Amino acid sequence: MTYAMIGTWRMAYEGLSQGLNLLKSGGSSGDTVESAIKVVEDYPFFKSVGYGGLPNEDGLVELDSAFMNGDTFGVGAVMGIRDVKNPISVSRSLSKEHFNSVLVGDGATQYAVKNGFELKNMLTSRAKKIWEKRKREIAEKNLSPYDGHDTVGMISLDQEGSMSVGTSTSGLFMKKAGRTGDSALVGDGFYVDSDIGGAAATGLGEDIMKGCLCYEIVRLMGNGISPQDACDQALYPFLRKLKKHFGKIGEFSLVALNKSGQWGVATNVEFTFAMGNDHETAAVYIAYPDENDKTRINPITQDWMDAYEKRIKAPIN
Amino acid sequence: MTYAMIGTWRMAYEGLSQGLNLLKSGGSSGDTVESAIKVVEDYPFFKSVGYGGLPNEDGLVELDSAFMNGDTFGVGAVMGIRDVKNPISVSRSLSKEHFNSVLVGDGATQYAVKNGFELKNMLTSRAKKIWEKRKREIAEKNLSPYDGHDTVGMISLDQEGSMSVGTSTSGLFMKKAGRTGDSALVGDGFYVDSDIGGAAATGLGEDIMKGCLCYEIVRLMGNGISPQDACDQALYPFLRKLKKHFGKIGEFSLVALNKSGQWGVATNVEFTFAMGNDHETAAVYIAYPDENDKTRINPITQDWMDAYEKRIKAPIN
Repeated sequence: MTYAMIGTWRMAYEGLSQGLNLLKSGGSSGDTVESAIKVVEDYPFFKSVGYGGLPNEDGLVELDSAFMNGDTFGVGAVMGIRDVKNPISVSRSLSKEHFNSVLVGDGATQYAVKNGFELKNMLTSRAKKIWEKRKREIAEKNLSPYDGHDTVGMISLDQEGSMSVGTSTSGLFMKKAGRTGDSALVGDGFYVDSDIGGAAATGLGEDIMKGCLCYEIVRLMGNGISPQDACDQALYPFLRKLKKHFGKIGEFSLVALNKSGQWGVATNVEFTFAMGNDHETAAVYIAYPDENDKTRINPITQDWMDAYEKRIKAPIN
Repeated sequence: MTYAMIGTWRMAYEGLSQGLNLLKSGGSSGDTVESAIKVVEDYPFFKSVGYGGLPNEDGLVELDSAFMNGDTFGVGAVMGIRDVKNPISVSRSLSKEHFNSVLVGDGATQYAVKNGFELKNMLTSRAKKIWEKRKREIAEKNLSPYDGHDTVGMISLDQEGSMSVGTSTSGLFMKKAGRTGDSALVGDGFYVDSDIGGAAATGLGEDIMKGCLCYEIVRLMGNGISPQDACDQALYPFLRKLKKHFGKIGEFSLVALNKSGQWGVATNVEFTFAMGNDHETAAVYIAYPDENDKTRINPITQDWMDAYEKRIKAPIN
């Protein structure tokens, strides 16, 4: 039977590889999304998700996450949660509630505490060093502080035909306290319908949310359009529209997967992602915006992977 | 020149009436949305918005609000903000920011404090009495605590052809700390594009957010469909879909206004709203779901208005 997963950024790769093994042995889409994102949240060298995620302006790590069940449309999400090891697990738990399924700030953290989720100081010494360095640079060079905002988003299709999507992020680096982006907003940062497919977004949340692009991609796929065409048709015209209306636009990258296991990607920057299914092993790809509202996608090179590994572990001076 | 406003629930009436006067004299859609919602936030007898809004399970008033500028697509929103007199003014201020434009929890309150917004203890003695009574009833009668969740949403079209939308709510009565609904989520609780029109939602946020209905209504209007048909076509099929997937559904009510000043409404419950434009004075209407995915709309009766007035001011025993 068909099964498949797609996830945003190179950081999705290890979790997604494990997720595919789970799907192969009959695991559910929900379990694979949760477990795959936990792998990303737990790895300290991914500096935009979970443990090791970069703190806000005040030096505190505030995390956003969401989970959606494509069978039931159950949605759970947390925004500005703190000191919780796996926000994705909290989101998934909340997605089973009919009331109080989206929680923000202290209320989100309290829910996690009261329900026995593992707590953890999510600030690593490495993240603290990066934050201190950035503070100095901002003061010395009068830089805009806002740079870096990579959400991990994963979409999974299991052998039963069920689909789920999840997201997790520490949000915009140097954000103000309480700032949230698109990652926990239904239709903006994620959407899934097991009868059609799912989508997830990453980039500058403040801009992504203006387009409801994940809902739009799923809607287009529901009209029979392929995930790649749906991504292209949703993103590129919207970027022109937003440029016209708003004057400036941040980074946008989107991934989509349909119920047949076909996938698609669109982006306005260099964007890596991971994908695998029942006949293709997990691999990392790199995407670029191309001419005529199309997306160019290449396999990743070993050189790129090596440089990435070196970069994320480089000493912070 | 054409101008128009529509707002959810009877409570929108006074603010909307004042807003229409502002529009008549050349006021902007943004100013009218903000000032009209402030009227609702300030009135102590509207128990689901602003001052007098019902508190959460812990007895604290946590408020959600959003503002979207249909010219620029600028979005500002707050979730779980406390002790701030006019959340809509905070949202509107945030909608002018490119970064950090959606704030949750303490961060939202801190932003309001730092930027000089008026603070106020939003818990009235009446709201406290209602909360205490509900606590007793829940304990004595084993009731589901969750009842009451009326968001005020306003859409405005000014003489220049600019459109804006705003929302404000104290959310689900007896909600858990930190709970938020659809009202501050782009595309779910509100959406507007001055080239097309806008929409706003009220009801059970946990369910409304599953459908991205405000985005969908605007999208349909962008295809040339009337606001009424767009509301009907977005809501009623989605209710069947959600019922099938999720098993149960809460209350949904939606209002829409297009760039020509035409309006529409759809709902699965008895739903009042206020509307007015350059040739019709502000008035309250009452809507019901009808057969064949249509909505039945009648003028409100004086009897209904009198009973409402009596009800919202009745002594709490």
